[in-house]
Amino acid sequence: MPKHDPAHRTLADIGEDALIQLLTASFEFDASVLTGPGDDCAIVRGPAKNRHLVLKTDAVLEGVHFTPETQPEKIGQKALARVISDMAAMAAVPEHALITLIAPPSTTVQRIVGIYRGLRKLAAAYEIQLVGGETCRGSQLVLSISLTGSVPAQRALLRSQAQLNDRIYVTGRLGGSLQGRHLTFTPRLAEAHWLAKQIKVSAMMDLSDGLAKDLPRLAKSSQLGFQVEFSKLPCQPRCTATQAWADGEDYELLFTAPALTAAKFRSWKKAFPRTPLTEIGHMVPAADCMVMPAGGWDHFVPAQANS
Amino acid sequence: MPKHDPAHRTLADIGEDALIQLLTASFEFDASVLTGPGDDCAIVRGPAKNRHLVLKTDAVLEGVHFTPETQPEKIGQKALARVISDMAAMAAVPEHALITLIAPPSTTVQRIVGIYRGLRKLAAAYEIQLVGGETCRGSQLVLSISLTGSVPAQRALLRSQAQLNDRIYVTGRLGGSLQGRHLTFTPRLAEAHWLAKQIKVSAMMDLSDGLAKDLPRLAKSSQLGFQVEFSKLPCQPRCTATQAWADGEDYELLFTAPALTAAKFRSWKKAFPRTPLTEIGHMVPAADCMVMPAGGWDHFVPAQANS
Repeated sequence: MPKHDPAHRTLADIGEDALIQLLTASFEFDASVLTGPGDDCAIVRGPAKNRHLVLKTDAVLEGVHFTPETQPEKIGQKALARVISDMAAMAAVPEHALITLIAPPSTTVQRIVGIYRGLRKLAAAYEIQLVGGETCRGSQLVLSISLTGSVPAQRALLRSQAQLNDRIYVTGRLGGSLQGRHLTFTPRLAEAHWLAKQIKVSAMMDLSDGLAKDLPRLAKSSQLGFQVEFSKLPCQPRCTATQAWADGEDYELLFTAPALTAAKFRSWKKAFPRTPLTEIGHMVPAADCMVMPAGGWDHFVPAQANS
Repeated sequence: MPKHDPAHRTLADIGEDALIQLLTASFEFDASVLTGPGDDCAIVRGPAKNRHLVLKTDAVLEGVHFTPETQPEKIGQKALARVISDMAAMAAVPEHALITLIAPPSTTVQRIVGIYRGLRKLAAAYEIQLVGGETCRGSQLVLSISLTGSVPAQRALLRSQAQLNDRIYVTGRLGGSLQGRHLTFTPRLAEAHWLAKQIKVSAMMDLSDGLAKDLPRLAKSSQLGFQVEFSKLPCQPRCTATQAWADGEDYELLFTAPALTAAKFRSWKKAFPRTPLTEIGHMVPAADCMVMPAGGWDHFVPAQANS
């Protein structure tokens, strides 16, 4: 089939971001929908006036997010930690989860029990109730989690509200996650709630695809640009700034706010002594996306920043 | 590997019902969880006192629930209709949905757009907001829907509350769904809300696996047995009572209640002139599950009724 024939174009031809754009472009919502597709989670009005509902779904697949050799407990842990990280990005409280397990009939019961052990351990640590789900036979192992939570009506943090001249901050250290941390990271839930209470955060998201992809998303969503200095990036041990910039799967918080005072930095350090909080740049007018690697400022043209 | 070695047993060895039993056996919940795994949906306390949240997730897979030849629009329609049917089974109002699409990169954009067209058409008809989701590459086409809804605090209908001597009713006509109706059925949402308001329904569920599997589940969950007369089963045209009993994918409502008056039957007929409401039997003490096919009453031993 000719690739330029629109009727026969495949997902491989157009890519995920263009697909999402295509599918959600003309979505219309009623007044119950406060935040639809395009942020870390959806936010909708529930039956209570003072708290909104926060909804998220996410799947991990064998061969994409883990391998046949991955310790089963870590598969369950990663699947749930990813959606908790998205809830953290909105400063929401995760509450109830549904689990969908798709598995080939040849999968050992032991492996599935291990996956669930990981799920339950993390659910217990974050006081999340695993209230149901379903199992189905399929050709590839898939673990999909739907998580519901809530957020005070005035406190949800979106990625679209960054202001001109706001500083850009990240929690933790970035880069090299695929060496193991992508399976065992700790979602920054307590940190997110602290930030929402203590600081005038204007926009927040979690770093799942890496600064190089996620910061342009935050900026675009806020109709602004950014300037980032590579030398300021907090790097994991044995990682370069380029890795911290582009590797992804950090699951740290990326947020913008007016410049923090030294006192705020001190109280962060007191609350989270082992997690650095780092200013890496600031927000500039739209279309001006610049990074400073060794050698001076460069205009940054993100490859796929439109989702 | 020897199959009797527990460490190497596979999902094919133990089956889905035993797996679910194993995974959810020791689940413990906090006070927010009103109905956990084992009913059509989960019910949890939300932030409002007068309405509970209802949560459901369900996936359809190529090769299991549809084929490569299935019209794309019908795939989307079926996926969403199934979860609406589960909401109907609790007499809940479906509100917001998240969509997870897993697809091989070779899938045509046209097919995916068709699937979403089916989704959106049905969502519009039931006033459901499609608020987000995700897409991911995988080896098999999977469409998973997470649906949230709500129900007045005192009106949720569980499958566990059937009473001794209650009559057993079904909506619509059963059997032969795989000839096409499984893709195009209308979830009985309006009917469920009518029943919850007009009749003292004691227990309700939707018929996804067929009476032969689903009625034993309702009975077991209510710690009762049942007697059903084959001659009373409302059959689809060109279907036998055996098909109505065992085929599955009817997505009709199965419920129990004290015997309905003729006046109630008349008002049902007025509200839903094209959908029959049929008494098919009654609830008896536990362990006494009997059906009367041609030739007289037989004890009924369900093959897999423990999920």
